[in-house]
Amino acid sequence: MSETNSPQAPAGGGIVVENRHIGAWQVRAQKDVAYEIRFCDDVFDPASTELLQAGTEEPSRRRFVVVDSVIDRLYGQRIRAYFAHHGVEARVLVLDIDETVKTLDMLAQVAAEIDAFGIDRRREPIIVIGGGVIMDIVGLVANLYRRGTPFVRVPTTLIGLVDAGVGVKTGVNFNGHKNRLGTYFEKSLTLLDPKFLATLDSRHVSNGLAEILKIALVKDRELFDILSVYGPELIDRRFQNDDRAGRRAAVVTIERAIHGMLEELQPNLWEAQLERLVDYGHTFSPTVEMHALPSLLHGEAVCIDMALTTVIAARRGLVTDTEMHLVLDVMRALRLPTWDTCLDAELLVRALEDTRRHRDGQQRLPLPVGIGAATFVNDVTAQEIAAAVDQLHDLSSRRTQSTVGQEVPA
Amino acid sequence: MSETNSPQAPAGGGIVVENRHIGAWQVRAQKDVAYEIRFCDDVFDPASTELLQAGTEEPSRRRFVVVDSVIDRLYGQRIRAYFAHHGVEARVLVLDIDETVKTLDMLAQVAAEIDAFGIDRRREPIIVIGGGVIMDIVGLVANLYRRGTPFVRVPTTLIGLVDAGVGVKTGVNFNGHKNRLGTYFEKSLTLLDPKFLATLDSRHVSNGLAEILKIALVKDRELFDILSVYGPELIDRRFQNDDRAGRRAAVVTIERAIHGMLEELQPNLWEAQLERLVDYGHTFSPTVEMHALPSLLHGEAVCIDMALTTVIAARRGLVTDTEMHLVLDVMRALRLPTWDTCLDAELLVRALEDTRRHRDGQQRLPLPVGIGAATFVNDVTAQEIAAAVDQLHDLSSRRTQSTVGQEVPA
Repeated sequence: MSETNSPQAPAGGGIVVENRHIGAWQVRAQKDVAYEIRFCDDVFDPASTELLQAGTEEPSRRRFVVVDSVIDRLYGQRIRAYFAHHGVEARVLVLDIDETVKTLDMLAQVAAEIDAFGIDRRREPIIVIGGGVIMDIVGLVANLYRRGTPFVRVPTTLIGLVDAGVGVKTGVNFNGHKNRLGTYFEKSLTLLDPKFLATLDSRHVSNGLAEILKIALVKDRELFDILSVYGPELIDRRFQNDDRAGRRAAVVTIERAIHGMLEELQPNLWEAQLERLVDYGHTFSPTVEMHALPSLLHGEAVCIDMALTTVIAARRGLVTDTEMHLVLDVMRALRLPTWDTCLDAELLVRALEDTRRHRDGQQRLPLPVGIGAATFVNDVTAQEIAAAVDQLHDLSSRRTQSTVGQEVPA
Repeated sequence: MSETNSPQAPAGGGIVVENRHIGAWQVRAQKDVAYEIRFCDDVFDPASTELLQAGTEEPSRRRFVVVDSVIDRLYGQRIRAYFAHHGVEARVLVLDIDETVKTLDMLAQVAAEIDAFGIDRRREPIIVIGGGVIMDIVGLVANLYRRGTPFVRVPTTLIGLVDAGVGVKTGVNFNGHKNRLGTYFEKSLTLLDPKFLATLDSRHVSNGLAEILKIALVKDRELFDILSVYGPELIDRRFQNDDRAGRRAAVVTIERAIHGMLEELQPNLWEAQLERLVDYGHTFSPTVEMHALPSLLHGEAVCIDMALTTVIAARRGLVTDTEMHLVLDVMRALRLPTWDTCLDAELLVRALEDTRRHRDGQQRLPLPVGIGAATFVNDVTAQEIAAAVDQLHDLSSRRTQSTVGQEVPA
């Protein structure tokens, strides 16, 4: 975790001055950033110093720790014991949070607590323990507090492990729009401990599998095959499979998902390039998710978006009907929705229009090509959306008997 | 104004993976940023396309424009006529703002207005016309809105021209602390039009001169000499001097101040280095300014800080008594305060403690060395502050008859 002006930037005094005769200055600088994501076995084991040393080269004896309320009930004692064991004065702030309260008001409350505790600007990283929602908002607080305080993420959900804890985006919802206010903030370190999944409810496991399925659909056919075979078992066992093949599937699924995500993120960390494969499933879903609040989780809304865009792709001949049915079957096998009662053409056209603004005036809509590849299009019409919605409604109400996941070893 | 991952960053797929065998990823990227500051003569002249083309390579026909209420009274018609002339649908938001309402609530109001208007993410830069306070808050909104919307600054005050419009800091006050929440945001272009100063009240001219004096004191003796000779006249004529020498002094003062500031900023744009010459006058002043609200302007609080630290430096032998008196005389000649009734040792010790946290646990306090140079110290004591406060109180109540500014040509 570091952030410096690069040595290539002019040394002190070496300012670039262009057109100096007419009174103009061009300021140029380069920021080198680096952040780390690593596995950590049993992060609250008092014998481990990983969490203690995370996020700072000169650890101090004070930490501000934000913990999700569910996690606090399950792990609160171990968390407090960990810091006490290491002689760290930890202020633990417990937050009961979901997308409905991921707001500027909540941000102000967290910031006020941090300010009351008082932390040194660079040496006392803010630690956040929880899922994607709490990481989004605490990441934004960390970015804003004194213009940047490092933070350490300990994701406890599957979506946190493979998605929210991997990228650099922060945000709060605003004005009914998902993450309408936010930043890119790279001063982070993420410790991945899949043991947390043992206490995750199955709906949230499925929620994380939606983001994993996204990576599979746009760039990793092998990952798709793993999901189609092992998906249901991974949910039932919460990724804690104890047979050899299942254990391997659990590890490989998480690693491939993270690796695929990072391959896309690293060359485009600040989204200079607005055609992003990882935006697949994120065109219609921000509006659908906010509209359906609190009934759909993020991954569920993403899955509905992927189902819709799979149908659009099939209608364009980019995906065969067989592939389309297979994709929808795998979604069902992962216990993810492909339909929501709030869906209609009018809402989806509005969603596409808002996303078009977000992508600077063009749709830049990722559509699957077969399974494991994708392309970008800019010409999806309202008529096309309406037809795809109707077709998806039919497909989803047919309650197809899934054949996926039947071959899992017992 | 640009921001990209540098070509040196690995191409798509070339992610840096370290310690892959134990499951760790190191993400590295480089961000190249460039922003521009340039003079612009009569920015609202319909014949000029500078403002129209500012901040985007593909100008669209819509702009969201935030204007300070005083400026709107003086220039509102010209602003609207400018955009109308160019066929641009401009939504002008007029804000009556000072440090007391530079808050998250105000930020939310501005963001809601932008969201209601709707802007494309990259092509419709937010334009802000006003002083430092409005630039700080609108800069933060621009940074947060869709994680970064370019913005164009048209500073209308002296402090805006030489300080707030030159750097990359944004912020709002929070919890009684100055700019406690903020960011560094480089997606900006600043158009400098010193003609605005013609309608600025003299107190705000002095306010800007405090930041210019700061640059002079820490790194530019020649600028100090210009201020000591021409300062009072520059205030009286609002930098619109019409004799040859005065006109030159006005131009040189603004240019040297900006250039000196940028020399310090460019190699340290994100404050990786916490020993910053431009922090001179900004150690005690954030607390003093917020404590005295609304009675002190930013530059006034900075000047009091510089007066205090000049006394501390004199007591350490870094500045001679003659130099100290000269500096205090020039401050008075620039019609800036060197004292405020809220000053006492207890407040100042608390201010230093808060700044120590901001500078990651060390004081890193810039102290002047003579006039035109500075050093950093980490060992200022409460006793030293108390003694300096007493001495500054004596010096400030003596009402020394200034000899500065007497030699200005008529």
